[in-house]
Amino acid sequence: MDASSQIERFLARSLELARGSDGPPLLTAAMRYAVFPGGARIRPRLCLAVARACGGDPDLSAAAAAAIELMHCASLVHDDLPCFDDAATRRGRPSVHRAFGERIAVLAGDALIVLAFQSLAAAAEKNPAAARLGRMVMIIARAIGAPSGIIAGQAWECEPQVSLANYQKAKTGALFAAATEAGAWAAGQADAGWHCLGERLGEAYQIADDIRDVVADATQLGKPTGRDAALGRPNAVHRLGIGSAVERLESLVDSAVAAIPDCPGASDLRAHIRAEASRLLPRELARPAA
Amino acid sequence: MDASSQIERFLARSLELARGSDGPPLLTAAMRYAVFPGGARIRPRLCLAVARACGGDPDLSAAAAAAIELMHCASLVHDDLPCFDDAATRRGRPSVHRAFGERIAVLAGDALIVLAFQSLAAAAEKNPAAARLGRMVMIIARAIGAPSGIIAGQAWECEPQVSLANYQKAKTGALFAAATEAGAWAAGQADAGWHCLGERLGEAYQIADDIRDVVADATQLGKPTGRDAALGRPNAVHRLGIGSAVERLESLVDSAVAAIPDCPGASDLRAHIRAEASRLLPRELARPAA
Repeated sequence: MDASSQIERFLARSLELARGSDGPPLLTAAMRYAVFPGGARIRPRLCLAVARACGGDPDLSAAAAAAIELMHCASLVHDDLPCFDDAATRRGRPSVHRAFGERIAVLAGDALIVLAFQSLAAAAEKNPAAARLGRMVMIIARAIGAPSGIIAGQAWECEPQVSLANYQKAKTGALFAAATEAGAWAAGQADAGWHCLGERLGEAYQIADDIRDVVADATQLGKPTGRDAALGRPNAVHRLGIGSAVERLESLVDSAVAAIPDCPGASDLRAHIRAEASRLLPRELARPAA
Repeated sequence: MDASSQIERFLARSLELARGSDGPPLLTAAMRYAVFPGGARIRPRLCLAVARACGGDPDLSAAAAAAIELMHCASLVHDDLPCFDDAATRRGRPSVHRAFGERIAVLAGDALIVLAFQSLAAAAEKNPAAARLGRMVMIIARAIGAPSGIIAGQAWECEPQVSLANYQKAKTGALFAAATEAGAWAAGQADAGWHCLGERLGEAYQIADDIRDVVADATQLGKPTGRDAALGRPNAVHRLGIGSAVERLESLVDSAVAAIPDCPGASDLRAHIRAEASRLLPRELARPAA
């Protein structure tokens, strides 16, 4: 099975854990709406690519990939809330709080966070790699919570004084780093290079996102553009100009690829990452994949 | 060390995981504010009492007790939000969103959920009972998420048609049942009676809460009274009258005690539960502890 089908299947299986004949229907419908149809699934694809390169346990790595995507979806639901970005659309249709109301959106985000850990534990229970569960939970929890996960990243938006580096590392880098670290850990690999790979890709992705916010059109993107300027958020294109932002992105991808530790599938992984990176930019700005 | 000190110490240790020199200060301050000073810590005390009666691993049971209390605190923060109860006070002082703003309150609740799993995994990692982590995560996750945990309970408030039994089982019973189940599981005990014990105590607690909402005064309670009538929420006293509500509560405590499975400390546990139950009601309504 290819990675994309594996991710969709495991996400669907995870969501089954949240369904039940006696549960509140709106909540489970909103959770499903937040996860399907997905975006590019960049983080879980990255997690699986690393796990394959390391020879990781397939069930544990699929569970980790799904957990990371569920966390990502949860964060989008909460970031879109009226008290934050008040986004009317996401992935080309109404955001969860517009479709289901603010209360269900708060709860759906909460329940997706819980589901991520639950489905990880469920997968580990029947698995020979169960002994890796503790560290796996820690890798993912650190990437989500305080002081330096994506929730902390969002919390920087509420501070009077913001460290831009800490903000972006937490808001974007943390979950990418968890994707690579978790993929490697599914094979029992704990080299610090894996974290480094993810962090650099996260930074590259953040810059690509900044570029798309400025140059893409909303239909192509499935969400409104020009939001950073409208909301006074930092944006690399405003800071560096478009040319230097693209250069910075390319240099980050190069250094990410260079950080890949020795592993059986290193060469395939390098190719995979370059190919994925070439899709981050609007076509007219991308350099051809090597 | 007595159970209360153990719980406070473990909660403090958990919150240390969320602190860091480079984290956003408001978020970590709000998390701490949501947890300290606590309420009666009924759920973690129950978890530890069961663990002691079963001879459970002390570190794993303390971690489970703390995780359950962190989840409870998270749910209070989110339940108090403007889109739900819009509560101005909690435990006798401003609610988290009044003290820190709505955005930080959303994020603090999220981060406390993550922290609960993280501190559980951290405790299990250095522990001979680590093999019990997977099931422990599942027990707690089920009590929090969809379709039948406390988040689902809150989601029933958003449904046009509500099953009162499912609502209360999820909103209150689930976390009590997790407290007893997790305490027993810290000793490797998985008898269904443990879940049953917690579920009945949860129902008793719900009725006691309904009674206090009607008869207690706000100063004594540390939160506004008469909220159920004001918000149109179901309340056992409105439904049954005060006398029958008290009788129902007492019969639930009796049947909870009767559900306790065989274990080394069963007799102490029965006494503990009766003593705790006698504290649930305003003094003038309680029957003396046996």
